[in-house]
Amino acid sequence: MSQNIKEKYGQLVKQLEEISRLGGIRGILHWDQEVILPEGGHGARSKQMSALAGVIHEKSTDPDLGRLIDSLHASDQDLFDANQRCNLREAKRDFDMETKVPRELVQEISELESRGHHVWIKAREQNQFSDFAPVIEKFVELKKQWANHIDPHKAPYDVNIDVFERGASMEQINPVFKVLKAELVPLIQAIQESEYQPEDSFLNGDFPVDKQEALGRVISKDIGFQFDQGRMDVSVHPFCGGGHPSDVRITTRYRRDNFAESLYAVIHETGHGLYEQGRPREEGDLPSGESMTMGIHESQSLFWERMIAQSKSFCRHYLDLFAATFPEKLKNVGLDEFYEAINVIRPSLIRVEADEATYPLHVILRYEIEQGLFDGSIRVRDLPKIWNDKMEDYLGVRPPNDAQGVLQDVHWSGGAFGYFPSYSLGAMYACQFYNALAKSAPDLDRWIETGNFQEIKSWLNKNIHSQGRLFSTEELVQRVTGSLLDPKQFMEYLKKKYGAIYRLKGLN
Amino acid sequence: MSQNIKEKYGQLVKQLEEISRLGGIRGILHWDQEVILPEGGHGARSKQMSALAGVIHEKSTDPDLGRLIDSLHASDQDLFDANQRCNLREAKRDFDMETKVPRELVQEISELESRGHHVWIKAREQNQFSDFAPVIEKFVELKKQWANHIDPHKAPYDVNIDVFERGASMEQINPVFKVLKAELVPLIQAIQESEYQPEDSFLNGDFPVDKQEALGRVISKDIGFQFDQGRMDVSVHPFCGGGHPSDVRITTRYRRDNFAESLYAVIHETGHGLYEQGRPREEGDLPSGESMTMGIHESQSLFWERMIAQSKSFCRHYLDLFAATFPEKLKNVGLDEFYEAINVIRPSLIRVEADEATYPLHVILRYEIEQGLFDGSIRVRDLPKIWNDKMEDYLGVRPPNDAQGVLQDVHWSGGAFGYFPSYSLGAMYACQFYNALAKSAPDLDRWIETGNFQEIKSWLNKNIHSQGRLFSTEELVQRVTGSLLDPKQFMEYLKKKYGAIYRLKGLN
Repeated sequence: MSQNIKEKYGQLVKQLEEISRLGGIRGILHWDQEVILPEGGHGARSKQMSALAGVIHEKSTDPDLGRLIDSLHASDQDLFDANQRCNLREAKRDFDMETKVPRELVQEISELESRGHHVWIKAREQNQFSDFAPVIEKFVELKKQWANHIDPHKAPYDVNIDVFERGASMEQINPVFKVLKAELVPLIQAIQESEYQPEDSFLNGDFPVDKQEALGRVISKDIGFQFDQGRMDVSVHPFCGGGHPSDVRITTRYRRDNFAESLYAVIHETGHGLYEQGRPREEGDLPSGESMTMGIHESQSLFWERMIAQSKSFCRHYLDLFAATFPEKLKNVGLDEFYEAINVIRPSLIRVEADEATYPLHVILRYEIEQGLFDGSIRVRDLPKIWNDKMEDYLGVRPPNDAQGVLQDVHWSGGAFGYFPSYSLGAMYACQFYNALAKSAPDLDRWIETGNFQEIKSWLNKNIHSQGRLFSTEELVQRVTGSLLDPKQFMEYLKKKYGAIYRLKGLN
Repeated sequence: MSQNIKEKYGQLVKQLEEISRLGGIRGILHWDQEVILPEGGHGARSKQMSALAGVIHEKSTDPDLGRLIDSLHASDQDLFDANQRCNLREAKRDFDMETKVPRELVQEISELESRGHHVWIKAREQNQFSDFAPVIEKFVELKKQWANHIDPHKAPYDVNIDVFERGASMEQINPVFKVLKAELVPLIQAIQESEYQPEDSFLNGDFPVDKQEALGRVISKDIGFQFDQGRMDVSVHPFCGGGHPSDVRITTRYRRDNFAESLYAVIHETGHGLYEQGRPREEGDLPSGESMTMGIHESQSLFWERMIAQSKSFCRHYLDLFAATFPEKLKNVGLDEFYEAINVIRPSLIRVEADEATYPLHVILRYEIEQGLFDGSIRVRDLPKIWNDKMEDYLGVRPPNDAQGVLQDVHWSGGAFGYFPSYSLGAMYACQFYNALAKSAPDLDRWIETGNFQEIKSWLNKNIHSQGRLFSTEELVQRVTGSLLDPKQFMEYLKKKYGAIYRLKGLN
């Protein structure tokens, strides 16, 4: 590499690291806000956040940075190694995303984001969809404009999907979701109609919070969360945040009447946390070391929450500990009984409470609606009816009001269209990763049964976490699993598992 | 005000607020680092801190800001109200401080700060002054150069004092400390020689930390700390930090064998916290609303810790609660006994553990040494001997090693010369403020006895906290107390109080 190019690349690294570190600060402030901040401090905090956002925006749109990127891009790419090429590619994408959209539009969107959130909270409280409808309408309009600035050659909804799930598009997702829908609806119906329904009432009771917390910490640590490189705290909604792979902060919430909810939230967030802690560090605070898409991130949380922690082997390993922790409720519960109870399938109104079989239908419903909003085939004012009809068609339940229906999710209030598909892509990736691991590790079940999670974590570290952003999602999934996104693997898994639990016959 | 000046002033406000908000973020990160940060996260955090410091430096030295300040300064000052003039004055001072010193020198100092800290920690651990001596030597040299850039017409040590205690100087401090030294040395000697020595062994014992914490929270709240605008947590060294008057974070530490230490640390930090929470908010995040010097800040913590909480009235109000909290140790302790025990005077080697009578001598010793280092009359290599001799002269104790002598304080390792005087200025201001309040409020003792702290807090809010930076320290003290800094008031208070406790005769 010539001296000149070397210097320019070094300058790029410096600027990208600065942006990344300021972003890490934003992560800490966000965590602080959700976990620690005194009630009276929110006003000042939002001004601090906005000052920091302003600085990050300045740094990210610095014309000198743009010129640097262009000049490095114009150089012979063979001069760079894979990590360097990745950093260049990511820097260009980020710079374009930040600079292609006119300032006024960015501002208009950002104003609607903070206003929209308040309108949504109130509308949901008062069960008044008509109050929120104008926000959705305006957002769709602005997000279409925004998409046209980013890439006028792509469908606006695809551009929005791409923000969360780089490389994904309606062309890829539609056939996949079609398979899911076609198979899930009858599967869930069969489960509902089965004469055998597991007993799960022992999951409800009185579970002291301090015991729940201690249990969560033990299991999170067993799985591999490094508490010297992270924390676990309490927030209203569980999340995984923090400021750096060496400072990863997961949260959960506790319900005294239900320990499984909190425990599985801890395991879910631990899955995200392991991804963050496992990101490559030797490359410094650069894009090549960042995590991939929302879908891949979700695959890591769901891998642990569902593929591992809802398996019978996992229950076998931990049932004694559960029973010792909550003897009143669990001391007489058998392994099969426990396993079936935590795997009960039950169509419900609320996405975030859904089980792994019904969840994708919540997602598909939203995806279809978003598509319709963006292509003009669905009018905002018709959303409540469309929502409720689809719920009835797909899951056999009808929301009694909009608060439990179309108003339940926060996403649209912040303009996050195109986000929902990632949840179910994540579930499918999790299943494929699990299958790939099982194929290469015949002892997988024994590992889980004996609490030997280190092997599993190492495999994820090596194959996924440490890869940073070197590959596209397609490339990564292909490399790790030998195939592309494949809804059939997910459906086979569900049918096998729930066919057994619910004693279903005639499933192929 | 003309449209042009109005616009310019508005622009100044915008830039100052941005700097202030980024500073608030720094406060939160610092708190996080001391209280919350996982062990493995410190490396990444220090890079984040330095990225933020870089941004704040850029913003604070922006040439456009300098031109704006100059142009507003050149305008007719009568166009501005008192707050606006204050903001202008402070902005100019800060800008000058940031820009007068050449970049290389700033960098050299900043590098020595982080290196010096590590050298100091190791030298103290190994009790090896000679390892630390070169750091002190270099710092004195750099801080002299630095001072010459800031103000070549002032003595370099005065310029350093001015950073922490604006307006103070050797000319002001020398005669004050002379009075203190002349009177404290014999007073402490008399106390030492008194036949009556209070019994305080019941302050040592086994005090469960959860009870200590609950007690601290009750008293902090009673005094007026608003827990919806702040927090209380644990750190290695107690401090008051946070990001905003609406987000003030105090910390303490707990020793299981000594509840008074933690309790009085809580009260001390609550005093700082009340100042921060009481800063004027209507003016926004601007210099006119900031707190004043270190000495005035310390006056607020010592006001509560010593003038109020070590008084007999305070003990009268809380002794029942103390006894109910720790009955094993305290249920048979009488009021006078308790009051005398928490006011024991005992010369010791360590400044941070010193009582209110011996503390100023620790400060004066350091002040005299710093003066000598800056005027060249003291050589660094002689410090251990000078330190130990002075300890023996002033307090009658001689450190057995340098770790408990000249190496005990963190300040010099970070180049903070001129900081120590503020502690004792604060103690004297606290006493004067107390006297002023007592004069205007004949019921003061009854207020304390009955736990009516609201009146006291309101008086401090009105007369000190809400004044922000409108006045110089001299002006403020004159306005509130009717006199300038007056060591005699402090000495009279000590002599009266300890004369009674130690049954001393013949004190004037």
